[in-house]
Amino acid sequence: MGVILDYGYFSRDYREYVVIRPDTPTPWINYLSNNEYCAIISNTAGGYSFHLDPRDKRILRYRYNNLPTDRPGRYLYVRDNKTGEYWSPTWQPVLKKLSKYVCRHGLGYTRISSSYAAIDAEITYFVPLEDNLEIWMLTLRSGSSTKKELTVFSYAEFCLWQAFNDLSDLQCSQGLGVAKYEDDAIFYSFFDVSTGYAFFASNGTVTGHDCNREKFIGSYRSESDPIAVERGKCSNSEAKGGNPIAATSNAVELRPGETKTIIFILGVVEKKSDAKKYIQKFSKKFNVDAEFQRQKEHWNTYLSNLNVKTPDREFNVMINVWNQYQCRTTFDWSRYVSFYETGIGRGMGFRDSNQDTLGVVHALPKRVRQRILDLTKNQFENGHVFHLYYPLTGEGGFPPYVKEKMKYFSDDHLWLILSTCEYIKETGDMTILDENVNFVEGSSASLYDHLKRSIDFTLNSMGKHNFPLLGTADWNDPQSLPGPNYAAESIWTAMLFHKMLLELEELCREYKQEKDAKRFEAIADKTRTHLNDKAWDGNWYIRAYDDSGNVVGSSRNKEGKIYVNTQSWAVISQIAPKERGIQCMNSVKKHLDTKYGIMLLAPAYSRYYSEIGALTSYVPGLKENASIWSHANAWAILAECMLGRGDQAFEYYKKLAPPTKNRIANTHRAEPYVYAQTIAGKDHPDFGAARQSWLTGTAAWMLRVATNWILGIRPQYHGLLVDPCIPKDWTRFEITRHFRNSIYEIRVRNPHHVSKGIKDVTVDGKKSKTSLIPSFTDGKRHTVLITMG
Amino acid sequence: MGVILDYGYFSRDYREYVVIRPDTPTPWINYLSNNEYCAIISNTAGGYSFHLDPRDKRILRYRYNNLPTDRPGRYLYVRDNKTGEYWSPTWQPVLKKLSKYVCRHGLGYTRISSSYAAIDAEITYFVPLEDNLEIWMLTLRSGSSTKKELTVFSYAEFCLWQAFNDLSDLQCSQGLGVAKYEDDAIFYSFFDVSTGYAFFASNGTVTGHDCNREKFIGSYRSESDPIAVERGKCSNSEAKGGNPIAATSNAVELRPGETKTIIFILGVVEKKSDAKKYIQKFSKKFNVDAEFQRQKEHWNTYLSNLNVKTPDREFNVMINVWNQYQCRTTFDWSRYVSFYETGIGRGMGFRDSNQDTLGVVHALPKRVRQRILDLTKNQFENGHVFHLYYPLTGEGGFPPYVKEKMKYFSDDHLWLILSTCEYIKETGDMTILDENVNFVEGSSASLYDHLKRSIDFTLNSMGKHNFPLLGTADWNDPQSLPGPNYAAESIWTAMLFHKMLLELEELCREYKQEKDAKRFEAIADKTRTHLNDKAWDGNWYIRAYDDSGNVVGSSRNKEGKIYVNTQSWAVISQIAPKERGIQCMNSVKKHLDTKYGIMLLAPAYSRYYSEIGALTSYVPGLKENASIWSHANAWAILAECMLGRGDQAFEYYKKLAPPTKNRIANTHRAEPYVYAQTIAGKDHPDFGAARQSWLTGTAAWMLRVATNWILGIRPQYHGLLVDPCIPKDWTRFEITRHFRNSIYEIRVRNPHHVSKGIKDVTVDGKKSKTSLIPSFTDGKRHTVLITMG
Repeated sequence: MGVILDYGYFSRDYREYVVIRPDTPTPWINYLSNNEYCAIISNTAGGYSFHLDPRDKRILRYRYNNLPTDRPGRYLYVRDNKTGEYWSPTWQPVLKKLSKYVCRHGLGYTRISSSYAAIDAEITYFVPLEDNLEIWMLTLRSGSSTKKELTVFSYAEFCLWQAFNDLSDLQCSQGLGVAKYEDDAIFYSFFDVSTGYAFFASNGTVTGHDCNREKFIGSYRSESDPIAVERGKCSNSEAKGGNPIAATSNAVELRPGETKTIIFILGVVEKKSDAKKYIQKFSKKFNVDAEFQRQKEHWNTYLSNLNVKTPDREFNVMINVWNQYQCRTTFDWSRYVSFYETGIGRGMGFRDSNQDTLGVVHALPKRVRQRILDLTKNQFENGHVFHLYYPLTGEGGFPPYVKEKMKYFSDDHLWLILSTCEYIKETGDMTILDENVNFVEGSSASLYDHLKRSIDFTLNSMGKHNFPLLGTADWNDPQSLPGPNYAAESIWTAMLFHKMLLELEELCREYKQEKDAKRFEAIADKTRTHLNDKAWDGNWYIRAYDDSGNVVGSSRNKEGKIYVNTQSWAVISQIAPKERGIQCMNSVKKHLDTKYGIMLLAPAYSRYYSEIGALTSYVPGLKENASIWSHANAWAILAECMLGRGDQAFEYYKKLAPPTKNRIANTHRAEPYVYAQTIAGKDHPDFGAARQSWLTGTAAWMLRVATNWILGIRPQYHGLLVDPCIPKDWTRFEITRHFRNSIYEIRVRNPHHVSKGIKDVTVDGKKSKTSLIPSFTDGKRHTVLITMG
Repeated sequence: MGVILDYGYFSRDYREYVVIRPDTPTPWINYLSNNEYCAIISNTAGGYSFHLDPRDKRILRYRYNNLPTDRPGRYLYVRDNKTGEYWSPTWQPVLKKLSKYVCRHGLGYTRISSSYAAIDAEITYFVPLEDNLEIWMLTLRSGSSTKKELTVFSYAEFCLWQAFNDLSDLQCSQGLGVAKYEDDAIFYSFFDVSTGYAFFASNGTVTGHDCNREKFIGSYRSESDPIAVERGKCSNSEAKGGNPIAATSNAVELRPGETKTIIFILGVVEKKSDAKKYIQKFSKKFNVDAEFQRQKEHWNTYLSNLNVKTPDREFNVMINVWNQYQCRTTFDWSRYVSFYETGIGRGMGFRDSNQDTLGVVHALPKRVRQRILDLTKNQFENGHVFHLYYPLTGEGGFPPYVKEKMKYFSDDHLWLILSTCEYIKETGDMTILDENVNFVEGSSASLYDHLKRSIDFTLNSMGKHNFPLLGTADWNDPQSLPGPNYAAESIWTAMLFHKMLLELEELCREYKQEKDAKRFEAIADKTRTHLNDKAWDGNWYIRAYDDSGNVVGSSRNKEGKIYVNTQSWAVISQIAPKERGIQCMNSVKKHLDTKYGIMLLAPAYSRYYSEIGALTSYVPGLKENASIWSHANAWAILAECMLGRGDQAFEYYKKLAPPTKNRIANTHRAEPYVYAQTIAGKDHPDFGAARQSWLTGTAAWMLRVATNWILGIRPQYHGLLVDPCIPKDWTRFEITRHFRNSIYEIRVRNPHHVSKGIKDVTVDGKKSKTSLIPSFTDGKRHTVLITMG
């Protein structure tokens, strides 16, 4: 337990991760966000904010990958005016050793408590459910025996709205921003007011302010030692160009034992006059408390859509709270904006966002419906799609499809089929297929037609071995296999294609388009046979053909002999006959499994290979060159479930699960409450160290794999299937799940210690011959009792 | 004198600017560069390096606009191992108060000397003339009475080569770089070695090293307090991804009075084995000293091309050293890379680089010839040009000419005529006109034909008032005058066009193309008449027509009534009849002149005007919204010279001259030895504060104006004209100038205290009827005596 408590733990109700020391191996962050305003905050209050789009409407500035680490942030300084001593109750940026420190990352809020010089401080940071602002509520309590005369300074550094220009075009951007204290608030905008306003205000006795960074910080100083704080006084400066900030000073007198609260508000408004109502509302503590309570209720409601009780507490922590919470974040912000993603070039990924719907469709069906239609607008008439789009403008980005140069990702467009099918299985809402959606070119067609064009695009992009041309890459971004012929082919894309054909075939039947169904069935049959004929390497499936037609991911290769994804997907896509499925997943176990998870490939490429391309630009063990890729681990678990191997599936699941990482936090480094994109593989000296936390397709897939495949509760077109694949030593589990306007209370017993197999089904007290539980849609609770065996 | 010495002074031989305290208002920088390797360094050793192109081959990282200010850099730490105390001899980054501090920015080198704890340190930074590396030579001397056991730590933080990705794509770029200590040097490259190698080595006893930033700096620390320095020991770490650095530790024992030298070398090589010869060579102090001496001689030779002796010492400082030095820098790096230009998007500007040739053509005619031809490759067949190109790849950039949307700068292409004509006047080399140069499209033509197409482009882009369509802007970047008709017209571009017609007409005559000459003469006549008919506002010339056809820069406007450039260029371009020229320049004096220089326009726009556009996005008094734009001040001085008003011209000149700013360094803030792009105008609270030092067209134009127009020594096609326009109180001046392979020693006397007018000319002892001194081309010295009157 000593090890577990190195940095923190999950609270008893799972709803908080409690960080118990400030110097975590990396900044451990949280997302405070409604659908429009987003504040990212670390366990020492570092981080930044934006409104609608982190590229175009960045409010607070962040210095990524900086020295000093994790600056700036939402900073408060407390100054004892008798001694002149000052500190930060969030440790950063002053970094003075606190006598107490706890940070609680909760659902939509972060609360940091600390003590220094007989003053207890607690700051609660959160974003209201509907208002585009963030609240920092500071409570100070004196444990001193004498009266304390304190000044509290606040500091927030504005970004010059356009985050890319703010970084790169200083000679221009530094002439644009203005900030001024007026009517009890600091207002910040571009001089031309094209930006609207950010405002910053606090209640209590504001004794001074600064809007000019240099005036507050001083010459050759930093956030650690601002001149204003040192001297105990702001300069009441205005910003006309340069670096606008919001800083205020508040006078606070505390008698022994006395407690006082100051509330700071930072938000955005179209007109200055709009700020008043927010300031009035949130200057009152009871309004802040009420809003905070609403936030809690919001999350209680959200999480009530899915709740499990299994023998594994850590599994429950993830499914009931943290994995769902992470899924909500990836659904909102794709791979766009974090402490590793700088929010300027990546937008909302097409394939990413389609997959991200899997993690929230049970809870946010309406938003998923809209998201699917928004994504569909990124499709071209030829069936291909923009790789990403920007949320504020909808503008599509990189890469436009350039056929002659194969500049596209060969899988992008296919994921739309998955998100649509899963949405309909969850909701039964076939009407989405009739929605008329524009192509990029301006013409339009039904969503159903869009889906068919996705298939056609791949059909029209086959290479000389009759597998899909790779394009620039497939799911594996740097798997570029470059060459003069643009002739590389992706076996993995062929598998995805096959799976999407099966999905679409089933959907066509539901949609009464038998002719289409038959067509897709026939293509699928051909694809499956062809894959088994040509892509089987003896113990596993190959990964690709390179530009010269040589195989990649084969025992014939010296390095990169085996890739995990064409094994897991051979099973997932139902290509592999059972025995081959077992054989290739056994090969994964043998060649790719490590103590921290499954590596993407092995052996790692020890040098750059021009025919393999960008993947081999990475250091061995990092990123796509044989790291432990979390997303791909989820697929391996799914494959094991499909093979019925519950113990193996659960072993893989547990290896990756964040609570496991909590026990090795110094190795894992990233937050032990969310998944990270990648973990250094065994070829790297930092083996086990995670990079790029939070924004990863892993979130949605791990939730899906855990609930739909390990617990086995899977929406189908005509009901909710129960088909678990659990560790044999589990004797029971329960799940409460909302499904099509009804609540399903499912209790599963496993008296015979099997991983798979249903012996007995009772629904609302009546025996059932099938474990496909009907879609009741009656708004009521239904009890399902299952006995495995 | 007290004021002058606040921050520094010019050395007696002008060759150094000596900074006497480290906390200058902004970092005061220097460029250490041969034509390929460039190191930018501040007076406290902050800064960064690149090879060939700051975007694509960035070696050292820099955090622009950072807190703490000016990090990282070329840092050394000295640690006293008895006490554990450590400091930086360059003040930054440890920031401990030094008992002595001096930084000497010289020509191609920077030398920082300081004392702390009885240890004198001197570090000389420079880049050898031919080798692509930088040298940091540290000399330590003990003034202690006991033996000192010191450890010297070095620190350089690598950029991940591609500067944009390094900033923005952390999740990718952090997996690419590797650094390792081997064979007595740290080698740093991408894992795929597509980058070549950077290497870092030192002589002396290297006791340890670090290549991994986190290992050297430590958790939640910064360059100010690295854990390795605090504990006195490196970790000998390797970097595999993450943030590669080069850090070493050297053991140094100093007996009382003893002096020791350590030489650090940072450079780039294609192959690791190439580094050895550099390390061997520059590990020897006498080789470093010899190379440093060569550097000095190089600059002596360079500056010997032009040397003046006037009654104004500060004028001499600028012309003989610092203005020429700045011109060399702008010629090398255009507006691409500084502490304000981030070196990722701006490339080599087409119009900028053409104008920059004016500042070096007297000294570097061969490089100018090549530059002109390189620039010409950016022309399209229709005569327009790319706005910029990237030096490493030659790739052209922003904006491609899009006629339907007027996406182009209306002046870009015309500047090629000026640089070509001035090159030929300087060298007499008409053969450049016959050079065959490609268009962007791939076809080719002679340079002469390219020049004619520049004229044709403007002729084909006239608006409804028959002035050139503005496009996106003209010289004034944000003068966008947007609107649905794309119909704005630029009066200033019309003036530039007229001037280029006159230049080209004269060139055609020299090139024996009489028919072309006549054609251009006729167009010029028409343009001149038309401008005087339509663009005269009564007391000055208007600036433009906006998209709706309303005038801009007229007494009829409420704000932005008068712009300086259409006044100065009315004179420069020989549009204005003499009396109008005087009248409009008097209006400049009356409406635009301030104590710190001439503002770009007045009154400043007090709000955003959609019909004026981007210019009014700037805060009043900053940038193009009525700041003191240095480049435009040079043109005003030129116009005053052409009007013969030597006192006024010199008054304007002195106001802008950096040595003047040295007397008001706290107001001016930027370096007082080079020009800055812009100075806040009187509408801004920081009135007088300069922004964007070093990279500005001001450098070339100020040198040109000072030498060719104030001193009046102007190359013509058939000789060197002497036609001064000086302050009346000057009684004499001398100039030594290389011109077409001969040396001209010109002595001018002004016994009658005139500003203009030649009374008497003697060349090599013989009376001459003209002050157009012949082109001797005989490699000899020629004496010219001029008496004004």
